Amino acid sequence: MNKIIIHEVGPRDGLQAEKTVVPTETKLEWLRALLNTGLDIVQVGSFVRGDKMPQMADTDELFRVLSKEPHAAILSGLVLNEKGLERGMECGVELFCMGVSASETHSQKNTGMSTIEAQGRIIAMAKSAMGAGKKVQVSVQSAFGCGFEGRIHEERVLGVVGAYLDAGLRNISLADTAGHGYPEQVKRLFSEIFKRAPDAQCTCHFHDTYGLGMANIYAAMDVGVTSFETSFAGLGGCPFTKVAAGNVATEDLVHGLRRAGLRTEIDLGALIGVARNVTAFFGRDMTGRVHKTAPLAY
Amino acid sequence: MNKIIIHEVGPRDGLQAEKTVVPTETKLEWLRALLNTGLDIVQVGSFVRGDKMPQMADTDELFRVLSKEPHAAILSGLVLNEKGLERGMECGVELFCMGVSASETHSQKNTGMSTIEAQGRIIAMAKSAMGAGKKVQVSVQSAFGCGFEGRIHEERVLGVVGAYLDAGLRNISLADTAGHGYPEQVKRLFSEIFKRAPDAQCTCHFHDTYGLGMANIYAAMDVGVTSFETSFAGLGGCPFTKVAAGNVATEDLVHGLRRAGLRTEIDLGALIGVARNVTAFFGRDMTGRVHKTAPLAY
Repeated sequence: MNKIIIHEVGPRDGLQAEKTVVPTETKLEWLRALLNTGLDIVQVGSFVRGDKMPQMADTDELFRVLSKEPHAAILSGLVLNEKGLERGMECGVELFCMGVSASETHSQKNTGMSTIEAQGRIIAMAKSAMGAGKKVQVSVQSAFGCGFEGRIHEERVLGVVGAYLDAGLRNISLADTAGHGYPEQVKRLFSEIFKRAPDAQCTCHFHDTYGLGMANIYAAMDVGVTSFETSFAGLGGCPFTKVAAGNVATEDLVHGLRRAGLRTEIDLGALIGVARNVTAFFGRDMTGRVHKTAPLAY
Repeated sequence: MNKIIIHEVGPRDGLQAEKTVVPTETKLEWLRALLNTGLDIVQVGSFVRGDKMPQMADTDELFRVLSKEPHAAILSGLVLNEKGLERGMECGVELFCMGVSASETHSQKNTGMSTIEAQGRIIAMAKSAMGAGKKVQVSVQSAFGCGFEGRIHEERVLGVVGAYLDAGLRNISLADTAGHGYPEQVKRLFSEIFKRAPDAQCTCHFHDTYGLGMANIYAAMDVGVTSFETSFAGLGGCPFTKVAAGNVATEDLVHGLRRAGLRTEIDLGALIGVARNVTAFFGRDMTGRVHKTAPLAY
C-alpha cells in the first residue's frame, strides 16, 4: 500500500461551522502545533469574504505568518472563486483546494452557479494556479448525496471527475458534504474513477452524520484511495448544507492507522493535545473518541 | 451475500453498564418494541447475581413474561456459569450466549477462572444447552485486545475458537470488549477462522472506544461475517474492563445497511424511537448518530 496521506481540515472545515470566532493567536497556536505533528497537509482557512464568514476573516494573515515560518506540512487553503485565488496567491498558499458541487441545489446555494458553470470556472482557476507553480486539488462536493436533493446520481459525479481528468487535473477529492455516503457506494465510485484514470490521486472527505465516516475511509482505502481529509476532535460541518455533522476525527484515524503499523511517526500525543485544546475552547463534547481516552500504548 | 443478522444487545450490554437501574416495566416496553422491529435476536439480560448487578436482577422475570408473548425475534440471554444456565433453562431463553475471555486477566476478573478452565466449563455448558434443544452462541471476549493486558495474541483467540470447533460448536462470536480492534486485524482473524472452518457462523461485537466500531463491522462483512451485535443508541461498556465505550448503535448499522438496500424491512423508525426513549431515560447524549438526525428517506 502507498503511504497514507492525512490532510487536517479542522482549522477550515471545523472552525467555519462554529458560531464563535477563534482569535487569530489561538488559531496560530493550534496551527503551529498541527504543522509539526508529521501530518502531511494542514488547511489553514478559506478565502471567503470576512464579512460573510467572520470565522475565516483572518485567513490571509494566518498564511502570511505561517508561510514565513519553517513548517513540515504543506499549507493548503480553500478558494471558492477567482478573487479568493488571487488573495491566496499573494499570501503563501502552497496547495489550492477548490471544488464543484455535484448537487445543483447545493451548487447554487454555495456559489450562485450551476454545477456546469462552476466546473468551467474551477477548471480555469486550477489551471491558472498550476501555471503559477502551485499544487492544486480539485473536489466534487456532495459527491455521495445531498442534504437538499437526496440522491446524487453517480454519473453526475463521474461527469465532473471526467471534466477534471480531461483538463489534466489528477489530484481529485470526493467530499461527502452531507454524510450520505456508505461503504459500498464509496468503493463503487472510487473504483470507477481508478478504472478511468489509474493514475488519479484520490482523496476523500467524509462527514459522520450517520455514523459511517470511518467505515467509509476504510472502504476507500480498500479500493486504493490513500489520502484523507479529517478534522481535529471531529469538528466540522458545512454551513451551506442541511443536516451535517462533524468530520472523522484526525486523531481517531491516526490512532487507527497506528494500530496497523501505519504512519507511526506522526505525533499522536500532540494531535490529541490540539483536539483537547479545541474541545476546551468550545466547551462542549466533541465526536472524536481518542482525545477522550488515552491512546493505546501498544 | 447472505442475509445480515442483527442481534440487539442493548438491554443487556447497554443497561448493565449504567448505574441507574431501569424499572422492569420500562425494560418491557423497550423490549416489546425491539422484538417487533424485524431485528433477528434481542438479548433480554444476563443471568448474574441480582445482588451483584441490580441492573440485571429482573432477567428471569423479563424472560418469563416475554417468552409467553408472541415475538418475532429470538430471545437471547447471557449466562456466565452453570447456575445461570439453570435459571435460563427455566424461564424461556431461546438462544444461550456464553463465552470465554482470551485475556487471562480479564478472565480472572470476570469469572475467577483462567481462560483454559473457563473454556472447559463453557463448552460443557454449551453442550448441555444444545442437548436440551436450545440454540447456543459461544464467544471469545477480549478477542482483539484487552484493557488490562493490551495485545492479545491471535493464537490465543484461535486456540479458544479451535476448542469450540472441536467440540462441534459452530455459532462463534468474537467480542472486542475493550474496543482495541482495527479493520486489518478483524479481517485477519475472521479469515483465519473461515479458513479453518468454512461452515462457521461468525458473529462480532465491537465497542467503539477508539472510533473504529463501524469500520470493524464493515471489515468483518468484507471477509464473510454476516452477524453483528449492536446496542440501541450506542449504549454499552463492560463493567469488568478498564476503558470501554459504547457499542456500535443498532439504528446506525440498520441505517447503513439500508443505504445499500439491505434489511430494508426492519422498522428503522421504531428502532430510532427506542433509542430516543433510552436516551431520554438516562438524560444524556449517547454516541449513536441516526437517532439524533432524521434517517435518510431515500
